[in-house]
Amino acid sequence: MAGGSRSPGASVTSRVLAVLGAFDAAHPALTLSDIARRSGLPLATTHRLVAELVTGRALARAADGRYTIGVRLWEAGLLSPLHTRLREVALPYLQELYTTVRENVHLAVWDGDEALYVEKVTGHRSVPTISRAGGRLPLHATGVGKALLAFAPPEVIAAHLRRPLRRCTAYTVTEPGRLARELATVRERGWARTHEEMTLGSCSVAVPVRDADGAVVAAIGVAGHSLGAVPQRLVPALRAAADGVAARLAETAQSSTSPVWRTSA
Amino acid sequence: MAGGSRSPGASVTSRVLAVLGAFDAAHPALTLSDIARRSGLPLATTHRLVAELVTGRALARAADGRYTIGVRLWEAGLLSPLHTRLREVALPYLQELYTTVRENVHLAVWDGDEALYVEKVTGHRSVPTISRAGGRLPLHATGVGKALLAFAPPEVIAAHLRRPLRRCTAYTVTEPGRLARELATVRERGWARTHEEMTLGSCSVAVPVRDADGAVVAAIGVAGHSLGAVPQRLVPALRAAADGVAARLAETAQSSTSPVWRTSA
Repeated sequence: MAGGSRSPGASVTSRVLAVLGAFDAAHPALTLSDIARRSGLPLATTHRLVAELVTGRALARAADGRYTIGVRLWEAGLLSPLHTRLREVALPYLQELYTTVRENVHLAVWDGDEALYVEKVTGHRSVPTISRAGGRLPLHATGVGKALLAFAPPEVIAAHLRRPLRRCTAYTVTEPGRLARELATVRERGWARTHEEMTLGSCSVAVPVRDADGAVVAAIGVAGHSLGAVPQRLVPALRAAADGVAARLAETAQSSTSPVWRTSA
Repeated sequence: MAGGSRSPGASVTSRVLAVLGAFDAAHPALTLSDIARRSGLPLATTHRLVAELVTGRALARAADGRYTIGVRLWEAGLLSPLHTRLREVALPYLQELYTTVRENVHLAVWDGDEALYVEKVTGHRSVPTISRAGGRLPLHATGVGKALLAFAPPEVIAAHLRRPLRRCTAYTVTEPGRLARELATVRERGWARTHEEMTLGSCSVAVPVRDADGAVVAAIGVAGHSLGAVPQRLVPALRAAADGVAARLAETAQSSTSPVWRTSA
């Protein structure tokens, strides 16, 4: 949002959102001048907005004087359908999958041309990965991303393949023709995989999750340093989790008029 | 926040927070007039603010026309130290605890005189409980709450016992003297328990989590329909989890100048 808020016509709401947008995973704690610089707002405006947001506990001031996202914003965020409709429904299945495979388990959705990680279930025996709940990674370089991309409408896939595809490692598939062929294979066999395409030394396997109408609305994946010589051995456990989540989503769709979490595709 | 925003002097920031505050666990999807009524804002103001918040994806509009918390707010909330510092550090230990006990595992902090649930790890074999991540329950009626309350400074405990203590079930301990004696026992033996005090048919066991300075900053609990005849058999597994989290919190406190999540006690 940086810069866009300096225009005189910018609403106070957009300034408040610019302040919140100054925080990201790499910058979870900021000084007042950090916030002003990153939001593109004058320091005096920033000072006033931050004080008001601290009063409302949307921001919090830490002992070292820096500001962080506050309790009230964290609570509000957990009311998002992403959390209440998708994550809460999926968690027991992710949980069971983790106890079976003992590797990092991911749940992701397509949002703004990226894989948005809704949940990550992990334990001591899992290796660290760069994924985190609330984090975003490229669709073409992750297992869950490929599972989402493969089942998108053909014109959406084509548009995505026309974009520059970031090379995350030497093994990232960035050649559109090769990626298109791989996505066709994913559709055919029903699961996606990566081999050191996002992070060296890490691979993943993922399957799509469908809603009651058969549309792919999420993906579940397993990622680790080594998923063994035959990572597809994990596919049955992944499918069981995805089927379980799909069945529960279909149930809740019938019993509720609540909106779905999907806001863009 | 309802009502407080109608005053002419209320800042736009406070109006934005009033709109967000209109949403809660019982009301995750609201119409425009719901939001106006619950936030105490005029309909025209609500209409304008909501439109701006939808543009910024802080709110989302669902197919049925109702509004929900949006993706950007969910993402921002996950940058809170409650999530990044506490939940992320604790999750692997909660995870291991769940695989050992196969009952609902809770992580909670003291916030605003309530137990604020930061995480809940659950599976198919666990019974449903009313707790949820982002939810709040009374300190005196929950296992995690008693573990937090027992280790608060004496004057804080005394102040809490002077408040009216809500009777959640016929078994809730609401008599201050009896609760004070029970909290003394909790301090002595190092763990808390409830027996149908929050919900009929459900009991819990919980232990405190201490930071590097020995202060109790969180509590970990296990809750289920029946924890067996001797729920204290779960205490060693709970202590192992709490010790693990405490050790990791001490490590991160040394390696980082990031603020802690605690904003009130």
